[in-house]
Amino acid sequence: MRALIFDVFGTCVDWRTSIQREAATHGLPPEFADAWRAQYQPQLETVRDGSRPWVNLDVLHRIGLDIVLREINIGLSEPDRAELTKAWHRLRPWPDVVGGLTDLKAGHIIAPCSNGHIAQSVNLAKYAGLPWDAILGAEIARAYKPDPKVYLASVHALGLEPHDVCMVAAHNGDLLAAQAVGLRTAFVPRPAEYGPGQTTDLAPEGDYDIVATDFWQLADRF
Amino acid sequence: MRALIFDVFGTCVDWRTSIQREAATHGLPPEFADAWRAQYQPQLETVRDGSRPWVNLDVLHRIGLDIVLREINIGLSEPDRAELTKAWHRLRPWPDVVGGLTDLKAGHIIAPCSNGHIAQSVNLAKYAGLPWDAILGAEIARAYKPDPKVYLASVHALGLEPHDVCMVAAHNGDLLAAQAVGLRTAFVPRPAEYGPGQTTDLAPEGDYDIVATDFWQLADRF
Repeated sequence: MRALIFDVFGTCVDWRTSIQREAATHGLPPEFADAWRAQYQPQLETVRDGSRPWVNLDVLHRIGLDIVLREINIGLSEPDRAELTKAWHRLRPWPDVVGGLTDLKAGHIIAPCSNGHIAQSVNLAKYAGLPWDAILGAEIARAYKPDPKVYLASVHALGLEPHDVCMVAAHNGDLLAAQAVGLRTAFVPRPAEYGPGQTTDLAPEGDYDIVATDFWQLADRF
Repeated sequence: MRALIFDVFGTCVDWRTSIQREAATHGLPPEFADAWRAQYQPQLETVRDGSRPWVNLDVLHRIGLDIVLREINIGLSEPDRAELTKAWHRLRPWPDVVGGLTDLKAGHIIAPCSNGHIAQSVNLAKYAGLPWDAILGAEIARAYKPDPKVYLASVHALGLEPHDVCMVAAHNGDLLAAQAVGLRTAFVPRPAEYGPGQTTDLAPEGDYDIVATDFWQLADRF
């Protein structure tokens, strides 16, 4: 195993409380973060199904933001909307992430394989202290996970084959898609990602190479 | 100034003595390194002039290696040629580079804007300890410097404009090309890059924003 590539939103960073905090500074209620995130997959799907050419996640987050603000009938100025869209560049890591990644980095290449674009991933890494060796994922593939192109473009950019690379995620769908194109897989559940009522992705739903409680335990397994 | 992007071969790493050392392990003479490097621009030019589709630098280094070995009439096995081609993933940094980059990284995004591809850049960074925030350059543009596409693709991948980004290089041609498309420029001469007889790139030949003797001084200027 030469490299580990990581899902980021939910797996490395706690997007929900981070977005809630930034939303509150604009007077938005706590449930706004979930409503905004609920726009995520539908907006990605417009690219995956070909109805929209590839655009980066700032563009899709902004479209979702405008929809949610219209639904909840709250007006925000254009500069506030632009600022809030960039909140996805400023998300706090789960407490085990920076230490676990630093440990893993000593012996492996580590990189995000996220639906975030390069600028978002770099800004987030600077903010959260994520010590990536490279930024891979959606932008280099011009596609969105779980499109197999995203996993394979990331593997090939490293000059590796799928069996040399382990995909790490808190989401079964992501891991099953990576496994289907030959990558190794590691499941690290994040049972608080969606708050106290989370019902999905609490347990592995596939035959993964590794299941770890956090990034420290993941590092111990490598 | 939000980001600095760097030429790598010659500017960050001493390719010449590194290649000489690896070549010696295959019984090749010291002048072999210069002969191999002399194939570099002609091979890049085959992509720049459109006579060859974009291929990565491992492919071009291997073509140049085969040409040089034929010229000097030295036979090397296929595994040795493959191994030697990867010597460009294992080059030692100039002594000021890791410290200077680490200092610069605290306040800026730092990334290579090299003709090396992502895998080569990542492997080199792991080997040499180069603490990049992202890997930019030729592969994301599918073009080779000084093609303006390489500088602009790197800038835009960071979500920035050319005037937000400083190109750092030991080569006037690289900086003049970056400046022509609006980037800021910093010249850090490497008078030993080509050995004791070097006659080129000893002094700035353009009106650059910064001229620094090494990466420590560069960091002090930011």
